[in-house]
Parts: sequence; structure tokens; C-alpha cells
Amino acid sequence: MTDALLDAVSAGVRIFDLGRPFFAGMPQSPNHPKYTHTLPRRHGDMVRPDGGSAANDLLVMGTHVGTHIDALAHVSQDGLLHGGANAGDACIGGGYPTHGVHTISPIVRRGVVLDIPRAIDIEVCEPAYQVTTADLDAAVARQGARIDAGDVVLIRTGWGRRFADGAEAYLGTSTGVPGISEAGANWLADREVIAAGADTIAFEWLPAGSGHSVLPAHRVLLVEHGIYIIEALDLEELADAGVHEFTFILVPLNLQGATGSPVRPLAVVPDA
Amino acid sequence: MTDALLDAVSAGVRIFDLGRPFFAGMPQSPNHPKYTHTLPRRHGDMVRPDGGSAANDLLVMGTHVGTHIDALAHVSQDGLLHGGANAGDACIGGGYPTHGVHTISPIVRRGVVLDIPRAIDIEVCEPAYQVTTADLDAAVARQGARIDAGDVVLIRTGWGRRFADGAEAYLGTSTGVPGISEAGANWLADREVIAAGADTIAFEWLPAGSGHSVLPAHRVLLVEHGIYIIEALDLEELADAGVHEFTFILVPLNLQGATGSPVRPLAVVPDA
Amino acid sequence: MTDALLDAVSAGVRIFDLGRPFFAGMPQSPNHPKYTHTLPRRHGDMVRPDGGSAANDLLVMGTHVGTHIDALAHVSQDGLLHGGANAGDACIGGGYPTHGVHTISPIVRRGVVLDIPRAIDIEVCEPAYQVTTADLDAAVARQGARIDAGDVVLIRTGWGRRFADGAEAYLGTSTGVPGISEAGANWLADREVIAAGADTIAFEWLPAGSGHSVLPAHRVLLVEHGIYIIEALDLEELADAGVHEFTFILVPLNLQGATGSPVRPLAVVPDA
Amino acid sequence: MTDALLDAVSAGVRIFDLGRPFFAGMPQSPNHPKYTHTLPRRHGDMVRPDGGSAANDLLVMGTHVGTHIDALAHVSQDGLLHGGANAGDACIGGGYPTHGVHTISPIVRRGVVLDIPRAIDIEVCEPAYQVTTADLDAAVARQGARIDAGDVVLIRTGWGRRFADGAEAYLGTSTGVPGISEAGANWLADREVIAAGADTIAFEWLPAGSGHSVLPAHRVLLVEHGIYIIEALDLEELADAGVHEFTFILVPLNLQGATGSPVRPLAVVPDA
Repeated sequence: MTDALLDAVSAGVRIFDLGRPFFAGMPQSPNHPKYTHTLPRRHGDMVRPDGGSAANDLLVMGTHVGTHIDALAHVSQDGLLHGGANAGDACIGGGYPTHGVHTISPIVRRGVVLDIPRAIDIEVCEPAYQVTTADLDAAVARQGARIDAGDVVLIRTGWGRRFADGAEAYLGTSTGVPGISEAGANWLADREVIAAGADTIAFEWLPAGSGHSVLPAHRVLLVEHGIYIIEALDLEELADAGVHEFTFILVPLNLQGATGSPVRPLAVVPDA
Repeated sequence: MTDALLDAVSAGVRIFDLGRPFFAGMPQSPNHPKYTHTLPRRHGDMVRPDGGSAANDLLVMGTHVGTHIDALAHVSQDGLLHGGANAGDACIGGGYPTHGVHTISPIVRRGVVLDIPRAIDIEVCEPAYQVTTADLDAAVARQGARIDAGDVVLIRTGWGRRFADGAEAYLGTSTGVPGISEAGANWLADREVIAAGADTIAFEWLPAGSGHSVLPAHRVLLVEHGIYIIEALDLEELADAGVHEFTFILVPLNLQGATGSPVRPLAVVPDA
Repeated sequence: MTDALLDAVSAGVRIFDLGRPFFAGMPQSPNHPKYTHTLPRRHGDMVRPDGGSAANDLLVMGTHVGTHIDALAHVSQDGLLHGGANAGDACIGGGYPTHGVHTISPIVRRGVVLDIPRAIDIEVCEPAYQVTTADLDAAVARQGARIDAGDVVLIRTGWGRRFADGAEAYLGTSTGVPGISEAGANWLADREVIAAGADTIAFEWLPAGSGHSVLPAHRVLLVEHGIYIIEALDLEELADAGVHEFTFILVPLNLQGATGSPVRPLAVVPDA
Repeated sequence: MTDALLDAVSAGVRIFDLGRPFFAGMPQSPNHPKYTHTLPRRHGDMVRPDGGSAANDLLVMGTHVGTHIDALAHVSQDGLLHGGANAGDACIGGGYPTHGVHTISPIVRRGVVLDIPRAIDIEVCEPAYQVTTADLDAAVARQGARIDAGDVVLIRTGWGRRFADGAEAYLGTSTGVPGISEAGANWLADREVIAAGADTIAFEWLPAGSGHSVLPAHRVLLVEHGIYIIEALDLEELADAGVHEFTFILVPLNLQGATGSPVRPLAVVPDA
């Protein structure tokens, strides 16, 4: 039996890692439990008679930290989740059985990145820059991109370059953060993508000093259209390579009832 | 530019989810911190003036719980990790910088499952059944399988059917658990696979009542050969479909310095 | 200024530690998050230029594990907390502001232990032995005890001797556990004690194999009478010394909004 | 049998709570795992057939957060703990069996607060003010204080008033924090106190912008003299009441092998 997929993989692929490393002190939203990793057992703590020893880990973390995906259970508007379910009643026994991250199927699909700075001929988007539908149209035109229903679309603002500068720079609380306008979110919804992502900590346009007080893109995508959101992506290597279209792979952990999951998404293309 | 990989994906794929669900009370080794998921914030706890509300999660867990991958940092023998590094010195600042799970590249490769019960014409392997090299050879012969260097090989014993019966049944402390012999581990190492997995909680043959006191397959694979181990896989749907060869996808979380990671591996084949 | 309290302390006191040690694997109810202690930093992980180094801890735990006190927020009946508050509405922003453990004032008061086995001339109460009002009356008579409103009363069954035998013995799921009857709980409430405790994991009579399905003493004390419950006390040293009346000290951690707190209560008497 | 202690307690006592409340977002050192409290189960999540329901908690926290006590295991100098033990070897199986916080006996002793601002006729100590031995002598003289071997001595700087202003104000990273000089620490050690505390987050003099890079008082007290340190005390009510001498009660949680414990210390005096 021929397997075109396996043949393509076996022919050689280049894998772009779109996830950020997880480490203590990494930039993350202060709204979520801090990422903590410790070693309850290190080598030597307990050695078996045969000379073997095992080290292990304890993780404590929110699910909306590091690169992660938001499930539909994450956000409600006027007391309702996507599809009109009562947000209070949707929580059963300490989890969200019908809107949790376990309901997101593993994603192996066509992915497209819209490179906004390149489209409008700047290096990176300024802090608090609002990505408009005109910008999105410009990126599509410049790239000759095609967006199909069911695709995953990633928005590059260039903000990801600040990840290495630490939490203050990347969170941008005082400066604001570039992001998509409400109209931009609707532009994506009109194209029936199944998930949208960005290289910022919140998939939103954040004016300087405003914090996360209003989150229209979350409302439009998660609540109104049932489109998943992926945050804190690393899109720099992809941009540097000029790759705009790829096989996108994202497998959320199967966390029953949770509102999100840490992830490590991949963009995969044939190795030239 | 043509993209054979994306063409294959776009033509339609069937995705087998090889990961187990994560939930409180799921079967897991008592040696590792228990999986705990809670909602610090539920909808309604804090509603923004515009009517929006967010729920979020706190996870507490070991990394060797649920379906997971073992990094080389997990096991040492006689004080040494794979490659001869001193296991005590390899821990720097509370993590394993050179042997941690962050050093495992995302895996998108050829995968093969060896279906032991089918090869030896039984329904499922008995508790404490030892999978021998003869069994492995039998599975290869029956399936007409090919194992290449760099492949991922998964061993199905059928024990995974017990996952639904709860922790006592799946852990099999009193009954023992089927698994590969030390010779079987060497058989895999001889074939230069990059990772090996099974449908049991430990990639080991466990006699009744013995616990995890001696773990030769871990030593052979992790320490002696630098081969990653994947545990608690769900291989039943794959077996039922008679799929033995596939594109195997496993993306560990990028946990800096950790000894393992929870995962949700996939087997992907063209949709017939 | 004279200080009779300080004079008494300075004259010498004997302190009975009524708390159990907290350690990984200690007996605790499976209904609550497991006690976990790890060292994120050990000495040597990070040494300052001046040669100093600090080690620190990460604790993960429920509050109803080890020796602990139950706040009024812990239990509701028919949707109501003590005083008639709606149990759902009483939770604000992820905590219980008016019924939480932070509302328990530090306790420095008269304490009385009722030694049931001694009162009825047995060594220790049998598994599943029900402590009746007759037993309580017998203990009062035998000890010549006086119980005043505002006192703390501790019930010794002798079950605490099993703590050292591990979780299975101390939890007594298969055997049942001795404890106070519903009538016994009312007997305590009639005496207007402010808190009641015992040397078992639940302040309840537990028949063999019944688990924690019905908890009448919790309802009577916490919900109907606003009396705090202290569980998993170590009363053995106190009993061996024949001390029945003492200054009882219990200081819950000031955990805002929590339903309980781990504690280490003391019984203090002048040093003879 | 007469019990002078219980008589004094029964005659009425005033209890000063010297502990700070524990809540998410409270001021704490960034060096330690953040205090997190969530409710895995809330009322209504699971109601028993008889109408009863229980809510419970999950705590995640360091032990050196909020008001807490440092055990001897916390700090080493040149690789050695108090008494000369090798700091690396002192860690056995992930804990400190001979230097951990479980080795601190519950404290019911004479306590003395030295009110530095009052002694030197200022309102509160300035940021980065160094408390000298002259200041300590001045406080003793002004208060007519007596310090006996075995006492607990608390140093009030007035900095505690900033606790309510939040983490930035209380941590004082940019401003510096008032605290005892190395000579001051030796002054306390000369008096053979068993524990010393203060109303700041670190029992140290911290110049502006210096962080916790050098901690001489910790070295003098913990390593050289085996004197416990208590941090983040609330001494304001005590100062307002003009109470300088009292029965000091501090009961660390019995955390086997840990380097510290959250606490809620009390100062108790007869009710005038």
C-alpha cells in the first residue's frame, strides 16, 4: 500500500518549532499560575541495589502560559460560551466537559502565516500597533496567499523578537503590544479558519497601559465563532526562511475539562 | 512550489490518537506526583465591565504520568547517564541542561507497531508475560514489517484494554504486567530505533508483586543506547484498524531541564 | 507590670505536640490533593560570590491533609452553610470570604480530652466502634471532667496508634474507623464548645467499607452549630501522661478564603 | 491540681496576631514559589444523596512566603550548614532530615519587641536604613527591656506599614529596605536568643537596588549561631498598644525535611 504522506516525510522534511521554551521566569501573563518545574528526585537520592537511579519532575503551571491554545471554555460573553451554553452550568465537577481543551482534535492541517511587517514594509510592528483588515489584505496580496476554510492562520507582528528580552519587554504592559483589531478578528472568522495564532502573549491589540481589560478578538473568535486561539508563537525562523504555507501540526494535551493547553506547534515543509 | 507533504495532508488523513486522556484519578505510577487539575477562576468569578469573563486552570503533575516520553536524564546506571556523564554533576540549578526532555527534537517520522498478541495468535498478552526476541521476530514476519534506523517502534501487548478498568487493573501491581525482556530491548537497540514505546505504564516486563525494583529495558534503551521511551500508549484503535506502519508524530513540551514530558502522540495515515 | 501568663510560661511548661508529621506518603484522605514537598533549590545549585547558598521548598497540598482544622466553609447541607448562607453564592472570586479558615481566630483556650478507651476500660476502640453519649458521659465521670462553653474538646479513641502503620491501617477503609455518633456530636454542641477534635482522619463514625458517604457529625458541628472540627490529632502522649485538661493552642494559617488549614495544635501544662 | 498557666489564660488574654494574611498576589520574594490557592471542589460540584456537599482547597506555595520561619537548612556558607555539616550531603532523599524545619520545637516563650523608630524618635525607619547596635542599645534603654538567653527578639522598623501598599512597596527593590547590620546580628547572637524576627521580607539591611545578593544576618544567625529567623511579621498593632514583652507563640508546621514553614505567630498578654 502506498502512503504519500509517509513518502513525503521519508523524503525529508524541515520542521519549524513554533513553540517557546518553558522555564522558570519565562514571560507569561500574571493572570495565570506561574510555570514552576522542580525535581522531587534527583539522581543519587535513591539508588536501587542494582545501581540504577531515576530522577523525576513536578510541574506546576497554568495552561495559558508559554505557547498555548485556548479552548472554547476559556472565554464567555454575557454569561454564555460559544454555542449559547450557560457558562456557569457548563462547569461540571470542576471542569468543562463539553467546551474543554480535550474537545479540540489534534490538528494536522494546512497552515498559513501572514507576515504583517513584510507586507507593509517595516521591520517589526511598533508597540500598540493595530493590525487592520487592510494590513491582512496587504499580506495576502504580497504573499499571494490563499486561505481556505479549515486552515490555521498565524499572524506575525515581529513582536516575538522581544521574547528573549524577558517578561517586561514581551508583556509590554507599559508600551502596549501590537495585535489584531476587532475587524481583523472578524476578517479571520469570515474565512472560516479553525484556529488563529500570533507571536504575542495575547491575541489582541493592547494599547499602552491598558492591560487585558477588553479582549474583543477573544470574544469574536472563541465565543462568536468557535475558533481556537494560539498565543506566544515563535514565528521568527519561519519568517526568516520566507515560508508562508506549510503543514501545521498542533496536538493539545488531552486535559479533560481544562480551558487550554500548553503546546509546541510545528510548521513542516519538504526539505528543499 | 509543490509540497508533497501538504498535498498528502490535504488529500485527507486519518489520525489515530495514541495518547490517553489526563484526568484526576487516572492510572499513574505512584512514584510520580499525581495529576491534578483545578480551575482557579471559573466563569462568573470575575466579570469585566463589558460582560466578558475568563476561566483558567492550574495543573500540578509529574511528567511521567499519563502518556509520556522519558528523556535521557530520567535514568542513570552506576552514577552515569547516557554518554557517560556523571548523573550528579549533570544536574545544574535544578534541571538537566544537556540530557533534559528539551533536547528531544519534535518527532515526525516513520513509525511501526509490532502487534505481539496477533503475532502469536492470542487475544492479549497475559499479566507478567515476557515479550521475547522470538515474539518480536514473529511480529515482524507476520506483518512483513521493515524496521529502519531512525524509526519509532511501538510494542502492543493488548494490556491497554485495561486502562478503562482503573488504576489497580492497569498498574497490575499484584498481577504483574507484560513487557519486553532485556534481550528484547537489545533487539530494538540493534535496529537503531530512535524511540520505543508500549501500551503499559512502564516499558518493562513486570513479574507479579515485584514493583519497579529492576528496570533493565530502561537501562538498555535510555542509558546504554540513548533511545527514548514512550509509555502508556493507546494502541487499540490502531490494532483494530490493522495499521502497522504510519507517520508517527510526537512533540514533547519544551520543558527546559525536565526528565520527561506528557505527550499525545499521533499515528497518521492517508484516509483510504 | 506583672504578667501571670508569662510568669507561668517562664516557670516552665510541658508542651504536648498534638500534630502529626507531614511527609510524602503520609496517611491522608484520597479526597484531597496529596501532600508533596520538593526542593526547587538545594545547596550548591546556585552559590553567591561570597560563598553563601540557600535551599528552598515547594509545597503542594490540600488543606484537609495531615492534622488540620475544618472551617465553616468546608461543609454545606441542602445548599446552605452555617448561618443559612447560600453555599454557591458564598464563594466569591475563588474563595469563601465570610466562612473561610481566615475567620477562625487563633485559639488559646481551655482544652479537655475525653479518653474513651480508658473510660470504658478497653485498650483502644475497635474499628467501626461508635462513640455514644453514654461513652462521653462515662469519660466525663471517670475523669471528673468539667466542660465549659468555649472550651475545645478532643475525643481520644486510641485509633491514632495506627498512624505509624501507614495509610491503609489509619484510613481504615476496609475495617471502618471508630468515631462519634450523631447524638455524640449533638452532646458536644449542647456544651457549646468552640471546636472538637479526634485522633482519626474524619471526625465521624465510619462503618466498614462505607467510605465518607454520610457525615452527620460534620453537619451537626459545622453547619448546624458553627463548631470547628480538628482531625488527625495525635493524642497518645497526652493519654500516656494522664493529662486531661490543658491550655490548648491552635493557630490556623491565615489562608484567605480557604476551607481549612493544616495545623500543629499544642496542649500545654505547667512542668511538674 | 492547680494550673497557673490555664488560670492566666482563663482570666482573659489579649492575642496579637503577628502574621500576615496569605492571598494570591500578596507581597512575597520572587525567589520562592508563588502562593496559590484554588478550590478544586466548590459547593454544588458534587452533592451527596443526603444533601451534603464539601468544598476543598489546593495550596501551592514556597515555605519562605508570607510570614514564615527559616530553618537551619535554609542557608549554608562555604558549603557548610550550622554545626559544620556538609550542605550537599545533608540533603537525603529530597529533604534535610537533621536541619529541616521539623527540628524546630514549637515555641512558647518570652518574647521582646525592640521598637527602633520609637527608640530614635522617628516615625518609621527610612528605606535602606541600617539598624545599628547603637539603635538596639537605644531601644533596650528606652524600653527598659531585658533580654534573656532563650528569648525571641523581634525588631520593629515600621516598614510593615507598607504591606498594605502591595508587593512593590513592601519588597522595596528600588528603594532598599531597612534592616539590621551584620554587627546587629552579632549583638542578637551574643544575647543567645533562640529566634529573631522583623517586619520586613528579609531579615537584612538591603541597600537600594541591591536585591538579595549578600545576606550577612542570615549567615550570622542561621549558620554561625543556629538562631532561627522569622520574616514578614506584622508588629504594628503591638507597637500601637505599647506592648514590648509578651508570651510569644510560634508553631511551625511539622514539614519533614523542609527549609522553612509558613507561620502565624502570636504575642499574648493578660487582658488588662
